[in-house]
Amino acid sequence: MTVELLKERLEAILGAENVLTEYEDLVCYSFDATMNVDAYIPLAVVLPETTEQIAEIVKIAAEEKIPLFPRGAGTNLSGGTVPVGGGIVISMCRMNKIIEIDEDNLTATVQAGVVIEDLINEAKKHGLLYAPDPGTVHCATMGGSIAECAGGLRGVKYGVTRDYVMGVEVVSADGDVSRFGGKTVKNVTGYSMTQLFVASEGTLGIITEATVRLIPLPESRRSMMAVFMDLESAGKAISAIIRSHIIPATLEIMDNATIRCVEETTGAGLPVDAEAVLLIEVDGFEGEVVRDAERIVDICKEFGAERTERADTDTERDSLWAARRAALPSLIKRASSTILEDATVPRSAVSEMLRAVSAISEKYGIPIGTFGHAGDGNLHPTILADFSRDGESEKVEAAIKDIFAAALSLGGTLSGEHGIGVAKINYMKDEFGDSGLRLMRKIKKALDPDNILNPGKLIPFDGGDVI
Amino acid sequence: MTVELLKERLEAILGAENVLTEYEDLVCYSFDATMNVDAYIPLAVVLPETTEQIAEIVKIAAEEKIPLFPRGAGTNLSGGTVPVGGGIVISMCRMNKIIEIDEDNLTATVQAGVVIEDLINEAKKHGLLYAPDPGTVHCATMGGSIAECAGGLRGVKYGVTRDYVMGVEVVSADGDVSRFGGKTVKNVTGYSMTQLFVASEGTLGIITEATVRLIPLPESRRSMMAVFMDLESAGKAISAIIRSHIIPATLEIMDNATIRCVEETTGAGLPVDAEAVLLIEVDGFEGEVVRDAERIVDICKEFGAERTERADTDTERDSLWAARRAALPSLIKRASSTILEDATVPRSAVSEMLRAVSAISEKYGIPIGTFGHAGDGNLHPTILADFSRDGESEKVEAAIKDIFAAALSLGGTLSGEHGIGVAKINYMKDEFGDSGLRLMRKIKKALDPDNILNPGKLIPFDGGDVI
Repeated sequence: MTVELLKERLEAILGAENVLTEYEDLVCYSFDATMNVDAYIPLAVVLPETTEQIAEIVKIAAEEKIPLFPRGAGTNLSGGTVPVGGGIVISMCRMNKIIEIDEDNLTATVQAGVVIEDLINEAKKHGLLYAPDPGTVHCATMGGSIAECAGGLRGVKYGVTRDYVMGVEVVSADGDVSRFGGKTVKNVTGYSMTQLFVASEGTLGIITEATVRLIPLPESRRSMMAVFMDLESAGKAISAIIRSHIIPATLEIMDNATIRCVEETTGAGLPVDAEAVLLIEVDGFEGEVVRDAERIVDICKEFGAERTERADTDTERDSLWAARRAALPSLIKRASSTILEDATVPRSAVSEMLRAVSAISEKYGIPIGTFGHAGDGNLHPTILADFSRDGESEKVEAAIKDIFAAALSLGGTLSGEHGIGVAKINYMKDEFGDSGLRLMRKIKKALDPDNILNPGKLIPFDGGDVI
Repeated sequence: MTVELLKERLEAILGAENVLTEYEDLVCYSFDATMNVDAYIPLAVVLPETTEQIAEIVKIAAEEKIPLFPRGAGTNLSGGTVPVGGGIVISMCRMNKIIEIDEDNLTATVQAGVVIEDLINEAKKHGLLYAPDPGTVHCATMGGSIAECAGGLRGVKYGVTRDYVMGVEVVSADGDVSRFGGKTVKNVTGYSMTQLFVASEGTLGIITEATVRLIPLPESRRSMMAVFMDLESAGKAISAIIRSHIIPATLEIMDNATIRCVEETTGAGLPVDAEAVLLIEVDGFEGEVVRDAERIVDICKEFGAERTERADTDTERDSLWAARRAALPSLIKRASSTILEDATVPRSAVSEMLRAVSAISEKYGIPIGTFGHAGDGNLHPTILADFSRDGESEKVEAAIKDIFAAALSLGGTLSGEHGIGVAKINYMKDEFGDSGLRLMRKIKKALDPDNILNPGKLIPFDGGDVI
């Protein structure tokens, strides 16, 4: 089929205003927030408003074997929405209706294009919380965050997107529309299809609608900071907090490289010789929060914190978290290119992982600042690269490979919250071996035999085809 | 292959003492706890002790296309472990090692044959809780409860088995061993395979080991009872509790038929003219628990509870919960056969569902007592049948069909915690339609093309084959 004919058929479904084929439009959809992956110009971009329209688009694509690339806001960090090899990008941005907030069942039902923060704000009006909070909540969409199983700062207590998705509506590779799950808290009818679509990165079906769990907004919260002159002590304090059976809402760490960058940028008064800063928040019932905050400060002191601070007012809290929020921007400022990884380890291995990353940084002579979610072992080694330097690409690639190897050797995983996409696809075998990968390929092949759904992502190809 | 040759090959792997082929042994594995499904005598029963042995058994079965039926304690209530059509039953009971309790990561790693209560007791020694608590915790196994995604009384606050499984080791249909997930709280590497194996009822692979999440034991708890003379008010009280943003650990209901049975059997002093009794427990931080218990009592009174009781001591608590524990035994006593269903609805529809079940009971002239987990909408209509009566089978079948139809029409699901097995396999299409079922069939066919893994369960056959 010619592009002209394709355009005509798409316009018949969507109207001319919802089909983009001009080069300057296509460029905008050729890349996403991932820095180290190639861009591809798609054949067309479509902006559907209904599930039925998507089903019709998929039917054309299935017939003509044209690759489809569903896309929310394109904020993902593993190249998951890049239209590899070209095809049709399906932007979900016009499917942005919050269909229902159900206070009796503590659920929300949303279209895939709803911006996460819009849902969070709407839920808040009812005293409820949608807990997943990736750094991009203000623009990332529900569909994208479900397809990628986004995480965030609250994982240690509240889990990740997977823990909140109760049901999905999906368009499968043949254009059929199916619904799985719903508003029942318990559901063991058939395979866990809802859970399978979560984190499938658009490679098994296109999520068009979802029902998610809401929880009561925590009544109270307290934040703390603890400064450690050595990494070992910080690691021990993290373990001691968890061992004391306090589950903070947030337990973040910044390493020395990050602390120095943040201090340079913000002048917030962080000690530049500290090896680690922990930022901690507890939330819930007022009495419990007060008690746990005190206990955490005591534990940090006991394990050798040089300094601790407790934020008792909202203003104090905001200034304390400003340092953490400045971590990534400060690191980005320092280099012409930054590659943000999310290798993840069991939380007991956080200090070991930080040491490993630091050694890798030295080995290749590339600065790496690490910050992240210590409480759930999800770290963000951020590589500060300068690709104008000779051999930088190879060095960065080798460093990334070493970071993944270190995480896996500590019982960790390639990705805690950013997904595999194209960026980590070649490392999948390291985690799952042939047997595990084979099972995943069988699922991909069964649900998308012609490989038209977000091809080139998540599952490695062999000889150009999924085998 | 003759049975003799099969026996020889199995004995070569397992030793003669771990291969059962005597009729009196086989009979014990021909059925499970489900009352209304047929029994089948297997060819052999094997009792492996290692994953490697299971892999070898699967390889023989794959070669010879012999069906395999993995089995824990056989407590399931949908015929999920019945060896339909015969084959090899793999009893997991000798794989009963608790491999590790990891206090730093709040995880337990167990073999599939570990009895749930053994894990709960072991975790308790560390001040930790494995939260899923199906009624059969004292004998059901971890592997079985993961394969069925067992629920229990604490679903409303703590979720179900699915919410606690972080990683699995599985033997797939070709005898390969794969591992998915592990100790990391966040993991978005590849498809959600761990979640896919949960609730797959042994039809996609044999779970041999699992890593599960533990949580700190709640510090405090309070129980309450509220008696309602009309169902409507009880339903409104349930909604009002949830709307007030209190999430009880447990929120149970018994209908009038159940109340009368319990009172007859126990003489506990329940009002036999009450339409509903709610039994509620809150747990967590002492101060919060005390406040929430008071609020719940107030809400129940506000919505017309005839009587409320609060248990402040452990003895009072035990006597209060004795009535709930007596529900199923009391109902069973009343009939020669009982069929325990678990149709589940959104919690806002609990009173509507209770009324529907009551109407179905009247329509067919068959007593049905309903109790269950009102807080999560997971009800247990318990049909008291007397199959010696003419036409009873047909009536029971019609009543079950009506119960499922009622649940689905209220936005519910066929099974909240008992699974599909053979018992509900013919109703799957009512929930998922052709398109949803087709996707599930594709997954089954992809991972088990010869249909040797627990055949006849979960996925309906067409013309004797999975299509």
